[in-house]
Amino acid sequence: MLVVTLGMAAVPLLVLAAARLPESRKPEREFDRIEAGSPRVIIAGFGRVGQIVGRLLRARGIPFVALENSIEQVDLSRRFAGTDIFFGDPSRAEILRAAGAGKADVFVLATDDPAANVRTARLVRRMFPHLKIIARARNRQHAFRLMDLTSDPDDVVRETFYSSLKMARLTLAALGMGEEQANAVVELFREHDEKLLRDQHLVYDDDVALRQTTREAYTELQGLLEADSAARAEETSSASLPK
Amino acid sequence: MLVVTLGMAAVPLLVLAAARLPESRKPEREFDRIEAGSPRVIIAGFGRVGQIVGRLLRARGIPFVALENSIEQVDLSRRFAGTDIFFGDPSRAEILRAAGAGKADVFVLATDDPAANVRTARLVRRMFPHLKIIARARNRQHAFRLMDLTSDPDDVVRETFYSSLKMARLTLAALGMGEEQANAVVELFREHDEKLLRDQHLVYDDDVALRQTTREAYTELQGLLEADSAARAEETSSASLPK
Repeated sequence: MLVVTLGMAAVPLLVLAAARLPESRKPEREFDRIEAGSPRVIIAGFGRVGQIVGRLLRARGIPFVALENSIEQVDLSRRFAGTDIFFGDPSRAEILRAAGAGKADVFVLATDDPAANVRTARLVRRMFPHLKIIARARNRQHAFRLMDLTSDPDDVVRETFYSSLKMARLTLAALGMGEEQANAVVELFREHDEKLLRDQHLVYDDDVALRQTTREAYTELQGLLEADSAARAEETSSASLPK
Repeated sequence: MLVVTLGMAAVPLLVLAAARLPESRKPEREFDRIEAGSPRVIIAGFGRVGQIVGRLLRARGIPFVALENSIEQVDLSRRFAGTDIFFGDPSRAEILRAAGAGKADVFVLATDDPAANVRTARLVRRMFPHLKIIARARNRQHAFRLMDLTSDPDDVVRETFYSSLKMARLTLAALGMGEEQANAVVELFREHDEKLLRDQHLVYDDDVALRQTTREAYTELQGLLEADSAARAEETSSASLPK
């Protein structure tokens, strides 16, 4: 409290930050001093997505460093997970360098803020072009922007897409469709939708072309699924007539 | 405007709603009058998740009704998708009934508000116990609460889980792991994590037991992945020695 009354703007804030005030209303905390070994993977964002990737890598013994700019998330993760997680902003070049981005192989972009996410992708591509970027996208529009910045568009993953497919599969099963057929239907849809995303990426700044692509794709998908359905009906019943 | 000055509280609001004012600042709009046929599936929430499920069902010719309580989302979806989407709150019994919940088979709970989501699940379970619920969960804690309300805990899907696994698979591939092995590693992790979720569900209101379960599970997972790794090393090289 004393330092605040002295009226020095910059220093007191740092001191306050270092003092670790009680939980109630934290002042900003300084970023961690990062001392990374030689991680093969940098994970930006250690929320729901980053944690799954990190846990799998750790269980497999692959060294990684995670950067997370929510203090609460960092403290919570440390309770369970260990000390490869640092409080730091992954959209800053000096923090990426300190984390070992210069020598790592893969950059997993798992933050949940679409705008920050695109900024970080751009920075990584410029400063550390050797890093392979695997990116989390919020939705199709966000995916298009990230696909501009990754070497392979298939390395951009829409964050709810695969769980949506899982729910579709469960729905088909609940309607009585056999497991094998449900898997095939969903797999066909997935392939088709990912191809559509790649096609749309080429025209995403052209609203008319985008809608045209979407309509054509829908007709095509319906044709595919009907053909699949007819083929299966023939397989399962020799007396069946195609409709 | 005239009706407002009359000072009648209820009627003017309805009139205003019906008048469809310009986009800028919409007043509340009345819920759609729902005229559903005989849908086999009700989809609650037509955002990123509900749309994927709906598109797949439509392409497959399976009748469904979607309820969405964001006007913007409804208008946007109708532009592309047709008229099975109604503006309505899926956590209200009369709206579910109007949508055909009494005769449908599956209820896909795909809204992105965890609290409303749990309320809706509880309502559906009480009012329409014949409906099979497939539910979208935000995170583990939310999943536990939904697992209390679904007949099968495996019908609760964490919304970013499967895309996270996809990103983990891409990361392993980028590190040079072969496709088959990467698939096996991720599949082992998935099975393990879903078993962990089911185990944790039984103790989720007991913090000590929860942490104990988490720690044990981690040791077990590490053992599993190491065993998998050793087995594969033996397969691929007859001269290899287990470490």
